[in-house]
Amino acid sequence: MQLRHMNQFIPLQGIISENLPPDKHLGEADMSTIEISKEEADPDEKERLERIKNKPLLVECFNLFDFEFVARHVMKKTAWAYYSSGADDEITMRENHSAFAKIWFKPRILVDVDKVDYSTIMLGTRCSAPFYVTATALGKLGHPEGETVLTKAAHTHDIIQMIPTLASCSFEQIRDAAVEGQTQWLQLYVNKDRSLTKRIVQTAEGQGIKGLFITVDAPQLGRREKDMRSKFGDIGAHEQRSDNDVDRTQGVARAISSFIDPSLSWQDIPWFQTITKMPIVLKGVQCAEDAIKAVEYGVQGIVVSNHGGRQLDYARSGIEILVEVMAALRERNWQDRLEVFCDGGIRRATDIIKAIALGAKGVGIGRPFLYAMSAYGVEGVERAMLLLKQELEMNMRLIGATKISDLNPTILDLKSIGTHSVPTPTDVLSSQEYDGLLVPKSKPKAKL
Amino acid sequence: MQLRHMNQFIPLQGIISENLPPDKHLGEADMSTIEISKEEADPDEKERLERIKNKPLLVECFNLFDFEFVARHVMKKTAWAYYSSGADDEITMRENHSAFAKIWFKPRILVDVDKVDYSTIMLGTRCSAPFYVTATALGKLGHPEGETVLTKAAHTHDIIQMIPTLASCSFEQIRDAAVEGQTQWLQLYVNKDRSLTKRIVQTAEGQGIKGLFITVDAPQLGRREKDMRSKFGDIGAHEQRSDNDVDRTQGVARAISSFIDPSLSWQDIPWFQTITKMPIVLKGVQCAEDAIKAVEYGVQGIVVSNHGGRQLDYARSGIEILVEVMAALRERNWQDRLEVFCDGGIRRATDIIKAIALGAKGVGIGRPFLYAMSAYGVEGVERAMLLLKQELEMNMRLIGATKISDLNPTILDLKSIGTHSVPTPTDVLSSQEYDGLLVPKSKPKAKL
Amino acid sequence: MQLRHMNQFIPLQGIISENLPPDKHLGEADMSTIEISKEEADPDEKERLERIKNKPLLVECFNLFDFEFVARHVMKKTAWAYYSSGADDEITMRENHSAFAKIWFKPRILVDVDKVDYSTIMLGTRCSAPFYVTATALGKLGHPEGETVLTKAAHTHDIIQMIPTLASCSFEQIRDAAVEGQTQWLQLYVNKDRSLTKRIVQTAEGQGIKGLFITVDAPQLGRREKDMRSKFGDIGAHEQRSDNDVDRTQGVARAISSFIDPSLSWQDIPWFQTITKMPIVLKGVQCAEDAIKAVEYGVQGIVVSNHGGRQLDYARSGIEILVEVMAALRERNWQDRLEVFCDGGIRRATDIIKAIALGAKGVGIGRPFLYAMSAYGVEGVERAMLLLKQELEMNMRLIGATKISDLNPTILDLKSIGTHSVPTPTDVLSSQEYDGLLVPKSKPKAKL
Amino acid sequence: MQLRHMNQFIPLQGIISENLPPDKHLGEADMSTIEISKEEADPDEKERLERIKNKPLLVECFNLFDFEFVARHVMKKTAWAYYSSGADDEITMRENHSAFAKIWFKPRILVDVDKVDYSTIMLGTRCSAPFYVTATALGKLGHPEGETVLTKAAHTHDIIQMIPTLASCSFEQIRDAAVEGQTQWLQLYVNKDRSLTKRIVQTAEGQGIKGLFITVDAPQLGRREKDMRSKFGDIGAHEQRSDNDVDRTQGVARAISSFIDPSLSWQDIPWFQTITKMPIVLKGVQCAEDAIKAVEYGVQGIVVSNHGGRQLDYARSGIEILVEVMAALRERNWQDRLEVFCDGGIRRATDIIKAIALGAKGVGIGRPFLYAMSAYGVEGVERAMLLLKQELEMNMRLIGATKISDLNPTILDLKSIGTHSVPTPTDVLSSQEYDGLLVPKSKPKAKL
Repeated sequence: MQLRHMNQFIPLQGIISENLPPDKHLGEADMSTIEISKEEADPDEKERLERIKNKPLLVECFNLFDFEFVARHVMKKTAWAYYSSGADDEITMRENHSAFAKIWFKPRILVDVDKVDYSTIMLGTRCSAPFYVTATALGKLGHPEGETVLTKAAHTHDIIQMIPTLASCSFEQIRDAAVEGQTQWLQLYVNKDRSLTKRIVQTAEGQGIKGLFITVDAPQLGRREKDMRSKFGDIGAHEQRSDNDVDRTQGVARAISSFIDPSLSWQDIPWFQTITKMPIVLKGVQCAEDAIKAVEYGVQGIVVSNHGGRQLDYARSGIEILVEVMAALRERNWQDRLEVFCDGGIRRATDIIKAIALGAKGVGIGRPFLYAMSAYGVEGVERAMLLLKQELEMNMRLIGATKISDLNPTILDLKSIGTHSVPTPTDVLSSQEYDGLLVPKSKPKAKL
Repeated sequence: MQLRHMNQFIPLQGIISENLPPDKHLGEADMSTIEISKEEADPDEKERLERIKNKPLLVECFNLFDFEFVARHVMKKTAWAYYSSGADDEITMRENHSAFAKIWFKPRILVDVDKVDYSTIMLGTRCSAPFYVTATALGKLGHPEGETVLTKAAHTHDIIQMIPTLASCSFEQIRDAAVEGQTQWLQLYVNKDRSLTKRIVQTAEGQGIKGLFITVDAPQLGRREKDMRSKFGDIGAHEQRSDNDVDRTQGVARAISSFIDPSLSWQDIPWFQTITKMPIVLKGVQCAEDAIKAVEYGVQGIVVSNHGGRQLDYARSGIEILVEVMAALRERNWQDRLEVFCDGGIRRATDIIKAIALGAKGVGIGRPFLYAMSAYGVEGVERAMLLLKQELEMNMRLIGATKISDLNPTILDLKSIGTHSVPTPTDVLSSQEYDGLLVPKSKPKAKL
Repeated sequence: MQLRHMNQFIPLQGIISENLPPDKHLGEADMSTIEISKEEADPDEKERLERIKNKPLLVECFNLFDFEFVARHVMKKTAWAYYSSGADDEITMRENHSAFAKIWFKPRILVDVDKVDYSTIMLGTRCSAPFYVTATALGKLGHPEGETVLTKAAHTHDIIQMIPTLASCSFEQIRDAAVEGQTQWLQLYVNKDRSLTKRIVQTAEGQGIKGLFITVDAPQLGRREKDMRSKFGDIGAHEQRSDNDVDRTQGVARAISSFIDPSLSWQDIPWFQTITKMPIVLKGVQCAEDAIKAVEYGVQGIVVSNHGGRQLDYARSGIEILVEVMAALRERNWQDRLEVFCDGGIRRATDIIKAIALGAKGVGIGRPFLYAMSAYGVEGVERAMLLLKQELEMNMRLIGATKISDLNPTILDLKSIGTHSVPTPTDVLSSQEYDGLLVPKSKPKAKL
Repeated sequence: MQLRHMNQFIPLQGIISENLPPDKHLGEADMSTIEISKEEADPDEKERLERIKNKPLLVECFNLFDFEFVARHVMKKTAWAYYSSGADDEITMRENHSAFAKIWFKPRILVDVDKVDYSTIMLGTRCSAPFYVTATALGKLGHPEGETVLTKAAHTHDIIQMIPTLASCSFEQIRDAAVEGQTQWLQLYVNKDRSLTKRIVQTAEGQGIKGLFITVDAPQLGRREKDMRSKFGDIGAHEQRSDNDVDRTQGVARAISSFIDPSLSWQDIPWFQTITKMPIVLKGVQCAEDAIKAVEYGVQGIVVSNHGGRQLDYARSGIEILVEVMAALRERNWQDRLEVFCDGGIRRATDIIKAIALGAKGVGIGRPFLYAMSAYGVEGVERAMLLLKQELEMNMRLIGATKISDLNPTILDLKSIGTHSVPTPTDVLSSQEYDGLLVPKSKPKAKL
């Protein structure tokens, strides 16, 4: 078990930590904050093992939510908490998906939709569908083979994978898991030590990585209370806690934060352009003004994203930002000067289609593939991708679109996208005094 | 018990039935559709009697909702169902109160509010507060003394009472329960036989009634399924029902409907103006167009109302209609050419203040007084009125108003009044997969 | 039992399958995916039979929801799942009804409503009310006599029935169940083999069918997960499933889809106009642009519809589309150049009245009649129709309308129809920390 | 125990009651309405003491809601009811926090946020963060040392405290608990006897108080039914109540109200300006018109506030008023002519940031610090302040702001702030008939 824990930060010993000065290395002590080994007798753990034994058949997973359901029941509690948590009250995290419900379709009929082709080109790579595996940290929390599971499934389905800086597997392991010619991108946290950053970027480019996604929405890693509370419980089960424990739960976040340079700014962009020929994409743009700036700085792309709702609560959903960003770009006729991607809350092909119709080149999917991986390994991820493709084909047909370029804003009803409806607090007395309508009663028994 | 049942329709034997041709009389058979006498052993009834014994002290009723709560638990089921039911899905019935939540206050500060006077004049009568007891049918379902209970409480608080055509007490009984000089109005259902209607109107005028409220929103009485189902259950408890029972449950409504003339129209208004000098008020106006017409026909007032949500479902709330009606009247500078009243959903003094600030002369309150009466008799109604007055004084002070004429639209935020928000159906899977944030856990026990 | 299964696809052996080349026939194997015969000892089935024995009396069904309630409890699970399921998260399916709640009434008072006539003319046929039985597949899942049950009830009430391509009864059976002169329409799925389609259309016309409704919103049949899951459970109860079962649950949809031609397009419309004199109606129009096109192509009508929410999730409700379509037609003064119908979510006469007032000639009702049929057979469907008519009469009176042509947009408040309100995710901690107001407590017992 | 009760009104014996004429003194009789001593054997009390013993470790409180949770479980019921209650249906009280959810962020990326400084200046005092401890009554209900607990924590964190007129500790005690140079403000209820008011103000100024906050939203103290009901229960547990108890529960409010002068008006403002040199701030401004007037009267500041939702229900939230007020000030270019503060519903640093970005100089926080104090004493309040500061630093970074002056309206999405969404009443039958989607089932056991 310890070995596994030690491996969880191999990436930091791989692409990153081999370049880190020794005092920045994350030692074993930090590891313990991620997961505490449990004794055999732990009744929660026993129940979990029982649930694993009886987990639903993979073929009963009909949509991405089903993987989340299974993962929640078979994953270790701390791992689940780490994957599933978001910032503060997790409003943004949930808004990410629910914002899609503000956009409705205006399908076209009587279009010949015999053949539907949803393949597309992202940053010069043709791929089978307009979604990609976005970067997420610590894959080994969900599966012993970590991110390489995603690499394999991505290959099966001809889908691009973005390799995370904070992977559990080393960069080399993930790269090696890919087949010849399989496109991967690199997600980058920028270090205070720019020479280290330079080495990471150039190593990646040398190994054939096709895109550099610089994370710009995380100068500091978010506080995720569900995650913090989960660790607390874990610690508490083994020893009497004291009020001096204040910050034990923030270990990893702090360690990681020390790795990320909060002074990163627009002034650094030209430098990146000198050290690599890879297309540069800013991951985490959240308003039109910054999208315009991105064009002005000459980057090749942006991802409208709020980091899966894990950073700033009440940051708007990617899909809502996308509407604003595309309007600003189109106003200047700049919509072709960079590629716009979108992530956060994608669960259905209808979500993907909405983003593409608004102008995104592709959408990133993170947690759902982690859940599929945690629940069923590579077959799980493959089925998740298959389901999305089946939905894509079906829904494009039903919308009257046969190819990606048929998807444009005229098929969308966008009237409600900018609205944040907050119900007036419930009138408690009035509601509970109300005596609801009843259904018909069963037939009375005849008297004897 | 039978006696009480027979008395329930005395009004029809009083002001109305004495004038009804014999074949229109409602016989005993119809009575049975209202309430079936229960055997002593009925366990529901036993529990109800227990609840009556333990009912909360009157002084624990702090607001009108509390009376509704108590009434619901101490009233006979069929009586409760008759009072509390509304049309179809009871959307309008509930909207009536909840619509007030769309209007918010913009209070003024630093106004000398030492003395607050909320007395007002309605149809020429000065009264202590801008609300009146509106007409509701079948008072004896809630209390053996029926509408006269309301008469007494109205006197105590110097509040006007509107006498219903379909009262359980006779017109004379209700009139006699009033003290010398106590103002009462008459609510009128118009009969096909206009000579009968004429006699009713002139009898009332002769006895000093000060206003004639002609119900114009009920050419046919509404279908109230909660009420229908309640009667069904009752019948079913005693005999084997058959599919031939189809219409037994509609007995009273049908009988009453045969009394109401559905051909009543604007053409009849001039005739009413020839037979009485009482101010004529049209009760049930539901849009600006008809309010304008009312002015043109020269009536003295209108009640914007949807009949307590008992007639047409998805009819708008009185308070929403009021906004539209006052805007149309003010546009023509006609706001002083008739008095506008409003009813439906009034439960708090803030509701009253909103209506008055919009331009209503007064508001009608029906069910809450019936509930107070059913739960605690005359003391209940008196306390209900007292609570409203206490709230009125307090809230006028907090708004910065010392008299009725200080209440005007500038103290209201009306931006949301015209909105009917219907939440998009819940994304069931997404919602139930969400794992909510947790509260802190109790301190773990120290290990021994 | 097997016989019944075999009969379920008679239509395909009737109007369709007699014309199908043998390799397209749906064999018995496919049937098994619809329903698996259950052993006598199945406890679920035993409970269901018990519920059937005690099902509520028909006269206790006061509205269409009540039939749905009874059907849900007496139908076989798989049959219920097939009828009640919708696409993806079933958002559109539920939105269909709830969208009506965005439209409110502005009733007119003092109109002589003694006589109310809600009869109307649709595609040249006078009928008793502005609704029709729309086409729904597989009627025998709900009742052994299948669609002929609907035919009989439709006759009783002088209501038009639309015969589905995918009926369980053969076209001839359904036609024969009709009386002389009873109007029926045909719903058509267009086959790849146009000569087959031609034969179907001309057979229908020859037998007196009065309208051809070409389904244009289903180039592929939707994925309905509730239905898929229900079948899975059923299969699982009998044999150990394996991960190779992936697609067993999609059997019927796939088979049917192979029958439907996804290449059907506007170019085919002129050809239809050459092969029949029946009025041609496009069923499934979902935006103004396509309604305009329909006029340009010279068809006689359109149905604004999203296929009961069974195809594309987040397709807008029929009633919302209707608003957009009528506005576009009126802008060009084309509102009389074709008849507009509307279906989806109709449950109350108020729903019907809203659609008619917006400009629809009639509305289609599907599931509610299936539920009434499944629960109570022909009497059930008759009562469902009767209830709608009673509601229609009542509500037209209450609105101040005496005939269909009195219903127009001035009686509607449409301000909220285009809004898709998605509540901001609940602030979990804030909500659960809130300590709600309490009701009064029972009287304390006196101390001894 | 009695001693503690007697101490609860020391403030009235301190700054206020020493100046009160004897007949205005609040005697012991009134005290009994606040809290009735409980017998040892009270089972509720026993459970509470048990909960206190097991209360969560302070370090498990990760946000302000957590303190509310703990306080609710460890406080005496009557104390909890007094702190947590609001006016009428407590709509405004809850709206105060939920209104913040109508404002969303538009963060800026690639800003150097290495150093974040959220210190600011309020009324001339530099302090560590843009929030202050606002005035709340009766601190000893929550902690035996009352308001001095807040004083100490405020000092630790360099936060300004506003001393309440209705404190449980005397003014001198609170002043003495402060260290040399620690800034405190005074909240003032104005007495009918202006010479008394003058003495209070001048005493405060003499003792170094740096701001005078005159409460203008409470000419009469609100009716809080949760509080009233809680006292009733308490009384009832000990003696048989009678219907004569009507007003026992209103004792304190009435007593206090007699102390507050409801005739206070704008005419009094010039007089205040003659008796003190302290900056004068009007606490409780609720619309733009009064904010403009405040500038015209030359006061130094206003607090947009609705008194924590304890006075007028359906008064708008402070944050909504702030939007209106700042717009009106900026229109006249008066935004620098007075300092605007905001209170009500602040629970997260994101709430603070929203208010500051709109133009507030600082925000007041009341109940959350009372809860932290009641649950954990001075350490609790200190941790509450620490958590807010940690959130402030994090969130300013994530927004791309390094100092208070970087916070301005361009980082906010304000489109929904003026909306009061009231959901249409639920369609009960339709909702309950809906059969939700299911999650995958556990794997069936293999047959033996």
